[in-house]
Amino acid sequence: MAKKGIKRIAVLTGGGDCPGLNAVIRAVAKTAINKYGLEVYGIEDAYLGLIENRIHPLTFDSVSNILTLGGTILGSSNTSNPFAFPMPIGKSTRKRDVSDLCISHLDKQGIDAMICIGGDGTMASAAAFAKKGLTVMGVPKTIDNDVYGTDITFGFNTAVTTATEAIDKIHTTASSHHRVMVIEVMGRYAGWIALHAGAAGGADIILIPEIPYQLDKVAEAVLARSKKGRRFSIICIAEGAKPKGGKMVVFKKEANSPDPIRLGGICHVVADQLAKMTGLSCRGVNLGHLQRGGTPTPFDRNMGTQFGYHALNILMRGVANHMVVWKNGSLGATPISRVAGRIKTVPVNCDLVRAAKAVGTSFGV
Amino acid sequence: MAKKGIKRIAVLTGGGDCPGLNAVIRAVAKTAINKYGLEVYGIEDAYLGLIENRIHPLTFDSVSNILTLGGTILGSSNTSNPFAFPMPIGKSTRKRDVSDLCISHLDKQGIDAMICIGGDGTMASAAAFAKKGLTVMGVPKTIDNDVYGTDITFGFNTAVTTATEAIDKIHTTASSHHRVMVIEVMGRYAGWIALHAGAAGGADIILIPEIPYQLDKVAEAVLARSKKGRRFSIICIAEGAKPKGGKMVVFKKEANSPDPIRLGGICHVVADQLAKMTGLSCRGVNLGHLQRGGTPTPFDRNMGTQFGYHALNILMRGVANHMVVWKNGSLGATPISRVAGRIKTVPVNCDLVRAAKAVGTSFGV
Amino acid sequence: MAKKGIKRIAVLTGGGDCPGLNAVIRAVAKTAINKYGLEVYGIEDAYLGLIENRIHPLTFDSVSNILTLGGTILGSSNTSNPFAFPMPIGKSTRKRDVSDLCISHLDKQGIDAMICIGGDGTMASAAAFAKKGLTVMGVPKTIDNDVYGTDITFGFNTAVTTATEAIDKIHTTASSHHRVMVIEVMGRYAGWIALHAGAAGGADIILIPEIPYQLDKVAEAVLARSKKGRRFSIICIAEGAKPKGGKMVVFKKEANSPDPIRLGGICHVVADQLAKMTGLSCRGVNLGHLQRGGTPTPFDRNMGTQFGYHALNILMRGVANHMVVWKNGSLGATPISRVAGRIKTVPVNCDLVRAAKAVGTSFGV
Amino acid sequence: MAKKGIKRIAVLTGGGDCPGLNAVIRAVAKTAINKYGLEVYGIEDAYLGLIENRIHPLTFDSVSNILTLGGTILGSSNTSNPFAFPMPIGKSTRKRDVSDLCISHLDKQGIDAMICIGGDGTMASAAAFAKKGLTVMGVPKTIDNDVYGTDITFGFNTAVTTATEAIDKIHTTASSHHRVMVIEVMGRYAGWIALHAGAAGGADIILIPEIPYQLDKVAEAVLARSKKGRRFSIICIAEGAKPKGGKMVVFKKEANSPDPIRLGGICHVVADQLAKMTGLSCRGVNLGHLQRGGTPTPFDRNMGTQFGYHALNILMRGVANHMVVWKNGSLGATPISRVAGRIKTVPVNCDLVRAAKAVGTSFGV
Repeated sequence: MAKKGIKRIAVLTGGGDCPGLNAVIRAVAKTAINKYGLEVYGIEDAYLGLIENRIHPLTFDSVSNILTLGGTILGSSNTSNPFAFPMPIGKSTRKRDVSDLCISHLDKQGIDAMICIGGDGTMASAAAFAKKGLTVMGVPKTIDNDVYGTDITFGFNTAVTTATEAIDKIHTTASSHHRVMVIEVMGRYAGWIALHAGAAGGADIILIPEIPYQLDKVAEAVLARSKKGRRFSIICIAEGAKPKGGKMVVFKKEANSPDPIRLGGICHVVADQLAKMTGLSCRGVNLGHLQRGGTPTPFDRNMGTQFGYHALNILMRGVANHMVVWKNGSLGATPISRVAGRIKTVPVNCDLVRAAKAVGTSFGV
Repeated sequence: MAKKGIKRIAVLTGGGDCPGLNAVIRAVAKTAINKYGLEVYGIEDAYLGLIENRIHPLTFDSVSNILTLGGTILGSSNTSNPFAFPMPIGKSTRKRDVSDLCISHLDKQGIDAMICIGGDGTMASAAAFAKKGLTVMGVPKTIDNDVYGTDITFGFNTAVTTATEAIDKIHTTASSHHRVMVIEVMGRYAGWIALHAGAAGGADIILIPEIPYQLDKVAEAVLARSKKGRRFSIICIAEGAKPKGGKMVVFKKEANSPDPIRLGGICHVVADQLAKMTGLSCRGVNLGHLQRGGTPTPFDRNMGTQFGYHALNILMRGVANHMVVWKNGSLGATPISRVAGRIKTVPVNCDLVRAAKAVGTSFGV
Repeated sequence: MAKKGIKRIAVLTGGGDCPGLNAVIRAVAKTAINKYGLEVYGIEDAYLGLIENRIHPLTFDSVSNILTLGGTILGSSNTSNPFAFPMPIGKSTRKRDVSDLCISHLDKQGIDAMICIGGDGTMASAAAFAKKGLTVMGVPKTIDNDVYGTDITFGFNTAVTTATEAIDKIHTTASSHHRVMVIEVMGRYAGWIALHAGAAGGADIILIPEIPYQLDKVAEAVLARSKKGRRFSIICIAEGAKPKGGKMVVFKKEANSPDPIRLGGICHVVADQLAKMTGLSCRGVNLGHLQRGGTPTPFDRNMGTQFGYHALNILMRGVANHMVVWKNGSLGATPISRVAGRIKTVPVNCDLVRAAKAVGTSFGV
Repeated sequence: MAKKGIKRIAVLTGGGDCPGLNAVIRAVAKTAINKYGLEVYGIEDAYLGLIENRIHPLTFDSVSNILTLGGTILGSSNTSNPFAFPMPIGKSTRKRDVSDLCISHLDKQGIDAMICIGGDGTMASAAAFAKKGLTVMGVPKTIDNDVYGTDITFGFNTAVTTATEAIDKIHTTASSHHRVMVIEVMGRYAGWIALHAGAAGGADIILIPEIPYQLDKVAEAVLARSKKGRRFSIICIAEGAKPKGGKMVVFKKEANSPDPIRLGGICHVVADQLAKMTGLSCRGVNLGHLQRGGTPTPFDRNMGTQFGYHALNILMRGVANHMVVWKNGSLGATPISRVAGRIKTVPVNCDLVRAAKAVGTSFGV
């Protein structure tokens, strides 16, 4: 029993790119065409393309052979909130609500529902559109694993795999040169990647935003290994990790930053501090954008395929304004309004943290 | 509050090797030593080493740097059921129960509990030892994902990753040569690997034991693609897949098999049959032992670490004769007697099967 | 000083697919368009497309983003010799020379020169076309590394990498289970892949066509390891390896072969024989088409790019009817007529064979 | 006919670690033991272990199973020139010649020859030891490919592979976000990695030390792509690349550098400058130590095996004080004194540079 009236849908991908986005697009489009006989449109570059009316048909063929591709064939955009879109007013710029314009673009093309694949920001806009009467369906996307309401989503497994492979590689340098290597991974507000890649890579020390670290405890852990004859240490640090009582050092992406230590990643700062405290040779490596890219792992491809399929399925069964989720080992859905503006952080006492501690990993406290 | 009396434990790994076994051994030993101050022993080559009294101490150092290693540092053995162990009697061989001998070996070394990491067969023996009064704890191991009682375990993710990478590679040959490629993966009784790798690799047709196929439907699906201008097809087949009404063709490992078609994998047979039915060029590739080997994925390393940690933890909290499990997204445990002799197959209507069908995959029916 | 008269060229890819083909196509087309202002055509499915007049323009855009793709965007065909093309005559088939038809197709499109990327067979036809007055330029292609006249070409490095990764994976199974694993790689007439992958994978025994093996010596080498406490062995065997005095066992691709042992690869036969001779557990794995597929290694991409660039360059400088080669560390060219019908085998006393022997590898003699 | 008198040799690995070092150690030791019946010693941590008399026997078993390991089982050290070794004199440090001490350590152990595996600095010390009468043999090691006298050596292929895989991954982010990505690779004085990885990764712009770039030309190349509708660009930059007329910006490893722009890699500086000049979103990624680590590629394993074998072989045939080389496709040797203090840079008109230009790559000039 398909939802009455839905004959044409549109799909967009918002926020930073993420392995598995194309798996979702493919599953949404193929399910819509194959199973429900719908017409499918793709919106380019997230909400920006919606604002600029760049909306084009997707055929079965146009979404074939994209399952293994990283990134998104639709393009994305980080900064295009339709409810506060920067418009030039004379010489200055002012933020305007252009959501009505967006809705008119969808209306003119006869689009009945919009599938929004994205993270926190994308869901917030989707929820706002839902309030204005648009039929929306959300699909969570995040390499950081911090989208609220779902246990996991696509992209995270690929990012953890890339980060772990990097730690594996750096292990040989660390051990050959008796060095302390500080490897920085993504995770501004949540330490999921650092925890999972650190545990999988056998990191000696893992530093995450949820557990503010004490630098002297970190140095102590390094020196304790030295005393046992382990002449190297691997530290896996989330970009958002911060010292106890201190604050997060935001990595400035522009080089003309007034603050010298912020360019290139906090791993370099921590490596420098530790070198002074321990007298050991310490080096930083910031994995940066490597973690977003590449072909998705099988896990993420299948997660994306199932999310895309499920989003279409529940939409056609009458559910609207929900985000599909993976909860307790099963597909489900949660009201999109409950998700927007929230974040899912690492419980400091979760199984993997406790297991890591049991095998000897320090969290710097 | 540790369980009274447990001061010394032993660990063994049974059945076919599986990526992640060393992660479990490491987590068991490190947790036991670090957290509970126990002594840890390793039993070589599964129950065979128990029968032959090859039991040696494991130190913290001896389980360091093994997290990324495939296989098992303890060795394994496929055919050593202590309750029906083949003993030479004159010129013939008779199966004997040597379990008392095993128990006496453990007793002499003062071992209070045994951690058995393995699949169906290993758990059956562990359950039988439990009945005889031994304190045992099981950890499920299977690349096939068919151990009953747990949603997932380590090894499967690595096997699926290896199989998917193979499908990815073969895609280019198939499309360049306009060929039908039949890729055989493990799964004698359950089609989990074929389903997950097939879906992740974008296979056009997936054949699993749970859904007996009709060869004419398979040929039809291939030809339907041909008509649409898709000049190649990828078929992912589980070794245990069988035609409707037919029976599983067991791959003979010995070349002097009376039945010519059974050597090298059923993929070759199916490829041959399809070539005749469709007139297209068809080829088989049997991935075989590739799927067991290699460094475990981060997912499997962390699953192994958590299982090993959890097994020790609940043992020391007084739980005995259970197998640790991953159920609905969390660690748990189930009585080992409930697991032995059962198998977990693919529900033919599960989400991934339905999603795969929705995006156009045929299951040959 | 460009060759007079060349304004339009065509390119085809012949024989089995091979990683790096697209790198050559891209370099040929981009160099032709960018540097020489030529028009470029692609011939589909090797000589078959030439016979059937399937020849289409290639633009700069149509060869963008193909550098990392395995296979060939032009398609290939194994069985389409224009000088002996099977034509249906009534109910039977007779081989006809259709080369004049091919030349007329090129003439009608105003094509002045043809770049033929392929192996032995492709070069033979190219040489025959050259004799008939066509301007041709050859680019050697072979994963087997057996094309005569060039030290190396693209595809081989990728195949060796895939085969070595497989051996690396299988190592863990072999050592955990104390097994003899027989890994079969491509190489019907030359053992280059077996030698290079075997040496790189640390194979204990390497069997290649150039050094006929003695099975009792192979069994001896396996047992000698056993005696030293090495309870497993890795054997890397080329598909064309044969016992001393015996003949090559051709792997039948069709299952209805009268000879049971030929299906699925000779690795299974050798494993079976060794099991009987040594009493050890032995298993075969046939890598098959895995070795042809996948994204080319950086080495092969750059080799392909340089070959494509060089082919165009010397063509425009007046060289014709040559095949580009890599000789003694540099790009060069050799008359295509010298290459056709010859093969480059492994010198049995080459550096890598001797180095492998020095580190303890047996060649079964 | 082995060189008279050589019965015991020692081997050391100097300079930054490099994939393939263990392949050389293994080949040296196994060839020495297997083929020549020598005794083999390993010197720990390069010349530092020689100074401190940390020299231990290597057995056949101790070099087994190390072929696939990155790094060096002997350890290394960057700063231990025995001819100018920093010694504490009261409160200050003075550089002393401790080479006689080193020789006495070798003499006491009865070591007749020393195999020195390393780069420029290691060879310089080896040459100085040769002058003092020690029998030495050099094996070139460099991921940068800049050791003089050899066309190539182990480590480079692995580094290029790691860098190319990173570019492949970043491609998807660049194209999804319409960004300019500046990827920094190793190469302080020579641009080999940047050239090979850039060409293999399809970089749009490659910046190397040998071709000083003009930033406005780089910006121009980026904008030219933009105009053609290519909304992203990939720039591969060697750490030692410098603007025309400017000087190399040395990446400071210590965070308390007075110069803010030097921390984290020059990629960030170039990205920042380009963002201002083009108005596009630009990001830097510095691969850093990732390039040194990991398991060596098959190419590097075999190169290392052949170098180690050859070094032993020519030593036993009476050659001394040479470095083994790979020249024009064959193994050879060159006097070690000719190598020390020299470097091999990229010829600005070499085949790969010209091929890259032909397919449209800019070098920023």
